[in-house]
Amino acid sequence: MYREFKLIERIEALFSDADSLDPAAAGKHGVRVGIGDDCAVLEPGAFDLISTDTLVEGVHFRRDWSSAEDIGFKAIAVSLSDVAAMGGRAGAFLLNLSFPPDLEKPFIDGLLLGLKQACDLFRPEKFYINPIGGDVTSTSGPMMITTTALGSSTPGGALLRSQAQIGDRVFITGPTGLSHAGLDILLDGGEEVAYPALLRAHRRPYPRVLEGAVIGASGLAGAMVDTSDGLIQDLGHICSASNVGARIFLDRLPRHPELIAYCEQFSDEKKLFRYLLGGGEDFQLCFSVPERHIDELQRIMQHERSRDGADGGADCSPGTNWELFEIGEIIDPVEGVSVVDAQGEKFQLDSVGYEHFAP
Amino acid sequence: MYREFKLIERIEALFSDADSLDPAAAGKHGVRVGIGDDCAVLEPGAFDLISTDTLVEGVHFRRDWSSAEDIGFKAIAVSLSDVAAMGGRAGAFLLNLSFPPDLEKPFIDGLLLGLKQACDLFRPEKFYINPIGGDVTSTSGPMMITTTALGSSTPGGALLRSQAQIGDRVFITGPTGLSHAGLDILLDGGEEVAYPALLRAHRRPYPRVLEGAVIGASGLAGAMVDTSDGLIQDLGHICSASNVGARIFLDRLPRHPELIAYCEQFSDEKKLFRYLLGGGEDFQLCFSVPERHIDELQRIMQHERSRDGADGGADCSPGTNWELFEIGEIIDPVEGVSVVDAQGEKFQLDSVGYEHFAP
Repeated sequence: MYREFKLIERIEALFSDADSLDPAAAGKHGVRVGIGDDCAVLEPGAFDLISTDTLVEGVHFRRDWSSAEDIGFKAIAVSLSDVAAMGGRAGAFLLNLSFPPDLEKPFIDGLLLGLKQACDLFRPEKFYINPIGGDVTSTSGPMMITTTALGSSTPGGALLRSQAQIGDRVFITGPTGLSHAGLDILLDGGEEVAYPALLRAHRRPYPRVLEGAVIGASGLAGAMVDTSDGLIQDLGHICSASNVGARIFLDRLPRHPELIAYCEQFSDEKKLFRYLLGGGEDFQLCFSVPERHIDELQRIMQHERSRDGADGGADCSPGTNWELFEIGEIIDPVEGVSVVDAQGEKFQLDSVGYEHFAP
Repeated sequence: MYREFKLIERIEALFSDADSLDPAAAGKHGVRVGIGDDCAVLEPGAFDLISTDTLVEGVHFRRDWSSAEDIGFKAIAVSLSDVAAMGGRAGAFLLNLSFPPDLEKPFIDGLLLGLKQACDLFRPEKFYINPIGGDVTSTSGPMMITTTALGSSTPGGALLRSQAQIGDRVFITGPTGLSHAGLDILLDGGEEVAYPALLRAHRRPYPRVLEGAVIGASGLAGAMVDTSDGLIQDLGHICSASNVGARIFLDRLPRHPELIAYCEQFSDEKKLFRYLLGGGEDFQLCFSVPERHIDELQRIMQHERSRDGADGGADCSPGTNWELFEIGEIIDPVEGVSVVDAQGEKFQLDSVGYEHFAP
C-alpha cells in the first residue's frame, strides 16, 4: 500500500503525459485547478454533466476473477458510459479509493494503469480525460472504487430519458447479455477458453462512449440510456420518464455468437432470451429515434465507421464499431415494455422469470 | 436495509421540502436535471467548485461512538467545508452509500436526517443544498459514505492555496485540537459528561461554511484551507503552494476552555500544543490576509455577527460566530512553517513529536 500523498503523486504522474497533447488548452480541458487544493476549480460552463458510480469488491468485481487493470478499466468505464448515455463527452473525473492496508503496490499500479487505458481509449479527439481530485482512505473491508465523471452535453442539450415520443424507433449499439453470461461462467467455476468474449464483457466492459457522443452531437436521437441494469429495465426507465410504452422485436436483438453457443449447451431454450433482455452491465446504449431521422443518423455512423477504419462490428466484437441495431418502437404507454417474438406473438416476460433474473 | 429504489425515493422525499423555498429558481438552484437520469444535468456555469470525501466506518466514525444523525451530518459537513475553504458556496451534492445488508432502516433514516440537518444549517440564504445523484451499493465490510459537493466561487475567484504573499497575516476562525481530543477521550473509554464540546467536535464537527462564503465574497483574503489535517500541516499546504513560509504565535492560538481543562489533567505540559498544532478534523478555516485588508474584513465579520445575532464566540462554542483570530504571519519560504512561543523563542515542533502525532 502506498502512503496517501505518494499515491496521489503516482496518479498525477501517470496522467501527466496528458499535458503533451495540447498543454495550453486541451490537456486540462475545462479545469482551472486540478488535484491539490480543497476543491478542484472548473472553467465556468465547461461541464454540465456529472455521474458517480461505486464498485465494491465482492459485489462488482473479484480479485481472483479480474486483473487489477481490468478492475481499474471497469471502474471508470461505468461512469464514462453514463456521460455517453446523455449524448455527452467526459473530460474529467474524481477518484475515491478505499483500499485494504495490505493491498500491494503492483496491484494498485495495475488498477491505475487500467483507469488510464480507459481514459485514453475513450477520450474526445482533442483532449484527455483527467483526474482532478478524489479521496484515498483505508478500509478493513472490501476494496471500493468510486469514480465521478464530469462531461459536457452537446449544444442541442442532453439526451434525457424523458424525450422519447410515440412512433420513435428504438435502437441499440450492440448485443446484450454477454456480461451476465460471463459472470455466470465465472460463478460456475470458469470456462476460460471457450467464451473469451463473454468473460471479457464481464471483466472489462466496453461502453459505447464514442458512439454516444456522436449520437448526441447529431441532434437526431430522442431519449437514451445505457444498459447497465438490463435492456428491459433500462428501457423501462425511458418509458416511465417519457410516459410511453415500448415494443421490442425479439428476433431483431443483436446476438453475440458466443452467447448463442453458450446457451445452446443448456436444455432451457429461453435462457438466451433471459440474457438478452435482462442481463446487466453490458453498457450498450439504447435510444429512441424519430423515424424521419433514421437515415441521416445511419449515414453519420457510416461516415464515422469509414473514417475510423472500423470493421462494422458484424461479429459484435468489442471496440468502437459505430453499428446501430433497430430493435423496436415507442408506443402508447398502456402496454408498458413488451416483447414480440418472430411470429408476432407477445412474449411473456414473466415466463422467463424476468423479475427474478434481473441482476 | 432499504431496497435501492426505495432508498433513493426516501432521499428525494426528505429533500423535497427544499422546493418550497422558491420552486421556480432557487429550490433546485443550478440544476436542470437531478436524481433519476444517467447523469445530473447542471445549469452551465452554475458550479465551478467540486470536492469529494469518503468516510469509512471504523476509520472516520464508529457506530457505537456516534449517532446515525451525527454520522450523516459529518459526512456532508466535510465536503461543504472544502467548498468553504475556497471561499465558495455549495449548492448541490452527490451521495454514494455503501451499506452492510443488515443495516437497519431507523439507522439509515437517522443518517439521512443528519445529512439534511447539515444542508439546512449551511445552506446559502436563497436556496437549498440538494442531492442530485449518487450510487447505492451493498458491502460485506464497513459502511462507507462518499459525498461530492458542488459549489460556486465568488466573482473574484476561488481562494487558492497558492495565493498567500509574504507580509500577509494568518487568521483562523476558531480553536483547534478539539476533535482530536474528543477522539482520544472516546479511545480511552469515554468521559461523556466532562467534555461535551470535545466529544461533539469529533462526532459532529461544525465547519465554518457561512464564514468561508463571506470571506470569499469579501475579496479581501489571500489563500485559504480548512484544518482537516491539523493546523501545521494544512498551513504547510498553503506555504508549499504559495512558495512562502509562515510563523505562528503559539500564545495567540485560540484555545477552547474544555481543551485546556482536559490537558491539565496530564503531567505533559506540551500535550495542549500538540492538539492545537496537530489535531485534525476541526474544520476551522485558516487563511492569509494582506495587512491593508484586515480592518475591512473584521468590519464585515462584525456586521454579519450583528445581523446574525451571534454572541461572538468568545467561549469558542460551535455555531456560526463570525470570529477571526490573528495567529501569525506569512514570511520568507526558507523558514517553512515555524511556531514562536510567548518569549519569542522558536518552538521546536519535533519536541512535541509532531511528525508522529499528525492524525
